[in-house]
Amino acid sequence: MGIINGKQFIERLNQLNNEIWYDGKKIEGKISEHPAFKGCMATKASLYDLQNHPDLKNEMTFQLSNQHEPIGMSYLQPKTKEDLKKRRRMIEHWARATHGLMGRSPDYMNTAIMSIASSASILDGKENCFPENILTLYEKAMAEDLSFTHTFITPQVNRSQTYIELTDKPISARVVEENEKGIIIQGARLLATQGGMTDEVLVISTPKFYKHDESFAFSIPSNTKGLKFICRESFVGGNSFFNHPLSSKYEEMDSIVVFDHVLVPWERVFFYNQFDVATEFMTRSSFHTFGYHQVITRQIIKLEFILGVAQLLVETIQVGEYPHIQEKLAEIIIGLENMKALIEKAEQDAEIDEWGYMCPSMIPLQVASILFPKIYPRFCEIIQLIGASGMISIPTEADFQSTNKEDLQWYLQAKNQSGENRVKIFRLAWDLTMSSFGTRQTQYERYFFGDPVRLSCSLNAGYTKDCFVEEVRKFLHLQ
Amino acid sequence: MGIINGKQFIERLNQLNNEIWYDGKKIEGKISEHPAFKGCMATKASLYDLQNHPDLKNEMTFQLSNQHEPIGMSYLQPKTKEDLKKRRRMIEHWARATHGLMGRSPDYMNTAIMSIASSASILDGKENCFPENILTLYEKAMAEDLSFTHTFITPQVNRSQTYIELTDKPISARVVEENEKGIIIQGARLLATQGGMTDEVLVISTPKFYKHDESFAFSIPSNTKGLKFICRESFVGGNSFFNHPLSSKYEEMDSIVVFDHVLVPWERVFFYNQFDVATEFMTRSSFHTFGYHQVITRQIIKLEFILGVAQLLVETIQVGEYPHIQEKLAEIIIGLENMKALIEKAEQDAEIDEWGYMCPSMIPLQVASILFPKIYPRFCEIIQLIGASGMISIPTEADFQSTNKEDLQWYLQAKNQSGENRVKIFRLAWDLTMSSFGTRQTQYERYFFGDPVRLSCSLNAGYTKDCFVEEVRKFLHLQ
Amino acid sequence: MGIINGKQFIERLNQLNNEIWYDGKKIEGKISEHPAFKGCMATKASLYDLQNHPDLKNEMTFQLSNQHEPIGMSYLQPKTKEDLKKRRRMIEHWARATHGLMGRSPDYMNTAIMSIASSASILDGKENCFPENILTLYEKAMAEDLSFTHTFITPQVNRSQTYIELTDKPISARVVEENEKGIIIQGARLLATQGGMTDEVLVISTPKFYKHDESFAFSIPSNTKGLKFICRESFVGGNSFFNHPLSSKYEEMDSIVVFDHVLVPWERVFFYNQFDVATEFMTRSSFHTFGYHQVITRQIIKLEFILGVAQLLVETIQVGEYPHIQEKLAEIIIGLENMKALIEKAEQDAEIDEWGYMCPSMIPLQVASILFPKIYPRFCEIIQLIGASGMISIPTEADFQSTNKEDLQWYLQAKNQSGENRVKIFRLAWDLTMSSFGTRQTQYERYFFGDPVRLSCSLNAGYTKDCFVEEVRKFLHLQ
Amino acid sequence: MGIINGKQFIERLNQLNNEIWYDGKKIEGKISEHPAFKGCMATKASLYDLQNHPDLKNEMTFQLSNQHEPIGMSYLQPKTKEDLKKRRRMIEHWARATHGLMGRSPDYMNTAIMSIASSASILDGKENCFPENILTLYEKAMAEDLSFTHTFITPQVNRSQTYIELTDKPISARVVEENEKGIIIQGARLLATQGGMTDEVLVISTPKFYKHDESFAFSIPSNTKGLKFICRESFVGGNSFFNHPLSSKYEEMDSIVVFDHVLVPWERVFFYNQFDVATEFMTRSSFHTFGYHQVITRQIIKLEFILGVAQLLVETIQVGEYPHIQEKLAEIIIGLENMKALIEKAEQDAEIDEWGYMCPSMIPLQVASILFPKIYPRFCEIIQLIGASGMISIPTEADFQSTNKEDLQWYLQAKNQSGENRVKIFRLAWDLTMSSFGTRQTQYERYFFGDPVRLSCSLNAGYTKDCFVEEVRKFLHLQ
Repeated sequence: MGIINGKQFIERLNQLNNEIWYDGKKIEGKISEHPAFKGCMATKASLYDLQNHPDLKNEMTFQLSNQHEPIGMSYLQPKTKEDLKKRRRMIEHWARATHGLMGRSPDYMNTAIMSIASSASILDGKENCFPENILTLYEKAMAEDLSFTHTFITPQVNRSQTYIELTDKPISARVVEENEKGIIIQGARLLATQGGMTDEVLVISTPKFYKHDESFAFSIPSNTKGLKFICRESFVGGNSFFNHPLSSKYEEMDSIVVFDHVLVPWERVFFYNQFDVATEFMTRSSFHTFGYHQVITRQIIKLEFILGVAQLLVETIQVGEYPHIQEKLAEIIIGLENMKALIEKAEQDAEIDEWGYMCPSMIPLQVASILFPKIYPRFCEIIQLIGASGMISIPTEADFQSTNKEDLQWYLQAKNQSGENRVKIFRLAWDLTMSSFGTRQTQYERYFFGDPVRLSCSLNAGYTKDCFVEEVRKFLHLQ
Repeated sequence: MGIINGKQFIERLNQLNNEIWYDGKKIEGKISEHPAFKGCMATKASLYDLQNHPDLKNEMTFQLSNQHEPIGMSYLQPKTKEDLKKRRRMIEHWARATHGLMGRSPDYMNTAIMSIASSASILDGKENCFPENILTLYEKAMAEDLSFTHTFITPQVNRSQTYIELTDKPISARVVEENEKGIIIQGARLLATQGGMTDEVLVISTPKFYKHDESFAFSIPSNTKGLKFICRESFVGGNSFFNHPLSSKYEEMDSIVVFDHVLVPWERVFFYNQFDVATEFMTRSSFHTFGYHQVITRQIIKLEFILGVAQLLVETIQVGEYPHIQEKLAEIIIGLENMKALIEKAEQDAEIDEWGYMCPSMIPLQVASILFPKIYPRFCEIIQLIGASGMISIPTEADFQSTNKEDLQWYLQAKNQSGENRVKIFRLAWDLTMSSFGTRQTQYERYFFGDPVRLSCSLNAGYTKDCFVEEVRKFLHLQ
Repeated sequence: MGIINGKQFIERLNQLNNEIWYDGKKIEGKISEHPAFKGCMATKASLYDLQNHPDLKNEMTFQLSNQHEPIGMSYLQPKTKEDLKKRRRMIEHWARATHGLMGRSPDYMNTAIMSIASSASILDGKENCFPENILTLYEKAMAEDLSFTHTFITPQVNRSQTYIELTDKPISARVVEENEKGIIIQGARLLATQGGMTDEVLVISTPKFYKHDESFAFSIPSNTKGLKFICRESFVGGNSFFNHPLSSKYEEMDSIVVFDHVLVPWERVFFYNQFDVATEFMTRSSFHTFGYHQVITRQIIKLEFILGVAQLLVETIQVGEYPHIQEKLAEIIIGLENMKALIEKAEQDAEIDEWGYMCPSMIPLQVASILFPKIYPRFCEIIQLIGASGMISIPTEADFQSTNKEDLQWYLQAKNQSGENRVKIFRLAWDLTMSSFGTRQTQYERYFFGDPVRLSCSLNAGYTKDCFVEEVRKFLHLQ
Repeated sequence: MGIINGKQFIERLNQLNNEIWYDGKKIEGKISEHPAFKGCMATKASLYDLQNHPDLKNEMTFQLSNQHEPIGMSYLQPKTKEDLKKRRRMIEHWARATHGLMGRSPDYMNTAIMSIASSASILDGKENCFPENILTLYEKAMAEDLSFTHTFITPQVNRSQTYIELTDKPISARVVEENEKGIIIQGARLLATQGGMTDEVLVISTPKFYKHDESFAFSIPSNTKGLKFICRESFVGGNSFFNHPLSSKYEEMDSIVVFDHVLVPWERVFFYNQFDVATEFMTRSSFHTFGYHQVITRQIIKLEFILGVAQLLVETIQVGEYPHIQEKLAEIIIGLENMKALIEKAEQDAEIDEWGYMCPSMIPLQVASILFPKIYPRFCEIIQLIGASGMISIPTEADFQSTNKEDLQWYLQAKNQSGENRVKIFRLAWDLTMSSFGTRQTQYERYFFGDPVRLSCSLNAGYTKDCFVEEVRKFLHLQ
């Protein structure tokens, strides 16, 4: 056992036969062949192949002392700063292979599993808590190279601060029953990206208000009875790579997860009906820290891609001489370098946590998590501002195969590019920032870490300012 | 003769049989039935019907003294401030019927024809100039209620300030020959919105550099031999109004216009091979002033729609209590009120121009033309910020017709809205700001008036500041 | 009786002998000769002279039917739109004479007196209310051309939303006693601009929480026993107009007003101990509307001055060729034109109010009141960005009178200006935006209308959006 | 020989008797006692004392192998990353002692001397170049702990891009003669901060256009014959620390430096009349890199001070509960953490340069140099936004010593602060951001590194993007 390859991933998923609904129909047949999923499945498969590639295997896997099969590096519990850098290199490899556009590359959830396993002992000895089940899952995930999705967002009838859901019939998923086999979950959760395209679904529910029955955590196979994924409209623009270079490969799909009386067996429950535990687990564990480390690494690669696209556009239409264009490129460079400096500082300032693992410093990661949702939409805007009306002149692959080819090659030529290449480049810029796929990416990154106001308030609340205030007080001789 | 209705418009267009290429294929059959065009055609038809509606006919048409058929109000040459207000009311009616989302409602180009006719005497007595042809066209347009498109943008191999195209074979359309029948045009022009969906194509070409053969103006039927429209990818999301409430109705299509040795008969030529005339005609005529008046009126209606959508979102998810949400709504209100105040000032300060027509004041319109391209993208962003992750949870009409309907109604319910209504509202917000249709709207508005830096420089250059400087000099007793 | 001139104003104020404390000392002798006040007093005197100037008297005064002495136009109760324009012209004259830099030119408070008199009947028949005293004051103010200050801000131990002051000894001024002569006020109020430099002090107190004893309104002479003005540090930079062209003339001073057991005679009380009345009086009367009309008119003149200074700087150092400089000037032009369009719309949309006066439309004024506090600091920044390091190279008048004069003339010369003129221009730009006087102006304008978040929320709350929402609902066929 | 203390510094400067002109008068007597200079001189003296303090001597000095007197750490030529950190610690100590408000603490120019000495060999064997003189100066500077100023800005008759000064009589300082003793300089240079308050003046002149006679570099004593410093108006608000806590200590003064036929002896000349050398020396030497390292370190300490002041204000008026206030604090934290991450990355990525010294990585420093001029003015604005109207209510020390003390203590009290403390805190916030001293600080930081547009263009030009473009090209299979 140990790492899988792309073929194994595809086969395993096809066999699961998860209940996925798309555009009013239940998906029958292989998910890897469904138009809305096949691009993403193929891309994920290529990532699994990547970790088997002889040139990279060394950086994509590690050896557990008690085993001789290689394990995915994303499962590595770091004990040194060098381990952190190893983890970063692995994340970069996968991110680079998808230009940072696949938010749910395998390392994202693998990191989550690794981190909750590392902090599992928080649950030791507490009522309704089963830390051993987390460790078992971690072992199994490593051994079988499992894939996961999760869902963080609860349905909200309204988003008013004071709203509390009080219906008898659950809206947000909650524990409605427990019996000798396990707990029964009823209700829904929103926005499981790649929902149905993974082996398992991890759910960690930490309600806003003091509600025991909404406080639970577990992981179950995606094909568990009663579990249903209802997809949104697909943003795959079509099969043509020429026309939709990004959505044809990276559209990940989001789905609503419905729990219709789903039984979670006891051996799969991490904790339940414990509001305080749920809150503590989220705030004290290393879940966020390692998670942020993965996400921000991926986002940096995405910025490199953005910068590459922006620069290629500038070269194509020869606008590099304009100071305002240079300033816009500099803006992207500044964002990129800021993010790089922050992740490196997080690693430099890493410290051994209470469980013995090398944990990155959280403050620089928090700063990056506030920065990125602001700069990413702005950089997409910059690409639109550079491309200007060219972002709209986008004929298709078929046009270049028709009798109009010669006209298009001639009339759309750029200084150093044929008309066809120019259209390819602009279609890429369009798919990145203006297609339904591109705007979903923007919205996804904008809200990835949560509400921006809350993020800022939380950074401020956790930041030690006493020393600086004290300096001022001393200077003014305040008593 | 006089105003037409929707049916007449559709029939006339279908008969023209213009050469339109879409996705590598020449469109055969009725354009009004082609998936990429039918929504827009139907909407345009409804606008023509609107001017025949008994309740509105009075405000949508006027009577020429020598004729008893009503003429479209967009052709009215205003002689009083009241005429300007009449024009505005007509524009508002058509804009409101399409929420300001149809940039090329008939009044847009009708206004252009009216304005060049009003200033045609600029061309009197000049070489290669035929002002009488403009007047003839204006008469014909009124009599037959013709529809037009035009193209302003030239293909650019590069956008460097100093680049001059020097190929033998034309890229930008130019006059390559003249004979007893007329002038021959060869080359391309970009971005004819609704290209192929109108009776005629108006071309006014004013090159950046001193190039006589790129300086010309004319109007010809869309089905003129050698004239070809190559479309971009369609942004119609599909037939379902539920799924794509806007793109199914308002997607206007943009196309590249290729002139393959096109003969423009002498009686259709306004001027040619006259660089100075081309420049003067654009800067001195009332073309821009009346054009801006039409566009800005439409944009104001669009802002009202944006405000309606934003407020409906706020009510749906009950976030009106948050000060930052209230500030965002106030931001839209401020933009809307600014635009309204500016158009009213332009009308209040209107003056009779050198040809005897009541011409709005240009400065407030210029200010509005710089303001709108900045606020429109921001207001789209505001809608995304209000909608947050809800902008991604968008199941389809088919989902609400499947067995999942009950689940979706329940889990997606809003405080005062069923799940279905909530999804309708979010899909509208998404189609307005995040679908390929929506982002094309944003880019279109952003660049409608041209390069923003140039717009600002031009406002500054034309604005009289001497009096203010003089006040300062006097205050400081400078000699 | 009727309008006074500058000399009368100075003499009356000197005779009052108000209790003003400056830098730890009670001011003895004539206030018009005190270094911290003489510039402002002289400027105010020049404004009173202005209304007597034969060229302007017609526009600065009006005739009451029952009197033959001319009355200051700022006291005119407008009954027609033409009256509103007359009021605006008067405000513009005074503002232009001070470049909009004197926030408390006489028209500001005269307008306040006029507006509360116009709405006085709100108080009719209510307990503890004496509308007749307002009317008497209005008559007296017109007859004697009285000058006023007022104070809006209460001392706040803290600004937390939920803080309520509960000390026994008043901090905020409140009614501590009433007897046969009147009411006794004890406590303080903050930020009376020109406090002590006016004939009277108007106080309208509308507490945040339901506190009767902090709800009152009256006007008393500035030299009333127990009334004390404690000034802040003066921002007069010195006597030299060359060195401090603005602060030497326009520094208005702010003061804390202390009420030490001050008796307000019954005939001076408008209302007291009536929380609901205080709230209604502020929200329903035309106090804000006419006040905004005055302030925004002044602010527009100030923007013209800013534009003049910016343009003069640009010409002096010849940076007009840079697009980013042109964009900055355009930014100021846009701000100025927006404000102008808004005030004109407010006048165009004016309507007769419930008391028979022609009241400007509030929405455009509110929009302007949110806009100005944002653009004014930005425009000051623009001036700093244009001036760059030149804003720091500012030798003094004495330098130009020393043996270094020739060196400075030579080394500091500008293309079309002597070194001395260049320094004069930069010192003006500096005094406007960077001196203590200039930054106080910025802060004053930024907070003139109150907390910006509250202003936006209030605009949003009062703005009718139902029609726009309804359009959207109809479009989506929502039930 | 070696480091000096404060007393030695004061005495040496007083003896120099430099020719300084202030407000039209030549300064006679001790500069350390002149009102415009004494605060700054005393503060500088305290910095020299600091390096002698037993607790810090170890971190503020180092030992040269051939000498036993300690040398100021700012002269250390770093050979390892640890040396870089030592340098940073030294800079931090001095910056912290002045809250980062003294731009020209001794380390600033000492670093410049160290860096040009380190790269002196660039000049080896070139015409009119004397690298040995740089080394001699470096030795002398270390031995005597000399203080320096320099001037970068040339007088500019206009700032148009194409302007070339062509007068016979020099405006910008240039070489007008050379003889056996040295070169003769005539003309002026602008903005020598602390001009006249240092032992020497370093001049490195690198003209914009190809002008040999404006290309030179040297250092001469401040009291050299013909050298004259003409000061701007002083921004010292007064002697009272209570009233002007910052300007009374940190106002550094800027001056115009006039060279009236100044002889620079050959042994003081580094190079002259060599345009290419001047340009190469600036771009290739480590002057900018080490300089940026010093400046950015100081700016970080300044941000800590800003954060302390902001937080103290928030606590004083109890506004910490408002999300928009928390966001503003978070904005400062983000700026601070970004800057910290960048300087650490510059050190982490440091490499041995061509002369064998450990040179920080330039890119992160450049990014920081573009960031800081944007965030610093914004953070000053944030302080004004937090302080609101309280920034204007600023009575003086004398007021608190008058009979009004009790009133002021009572009426201006804050939740946890007496009225006096509250005023102290607000006066500090005011002096930092709104006094003439504070706004000069803002302008100084805004332009410290030069024109922001140029900085961005230069970052973009020097940034390697090929790899990112190549990734995109490969992805699109472009040939």
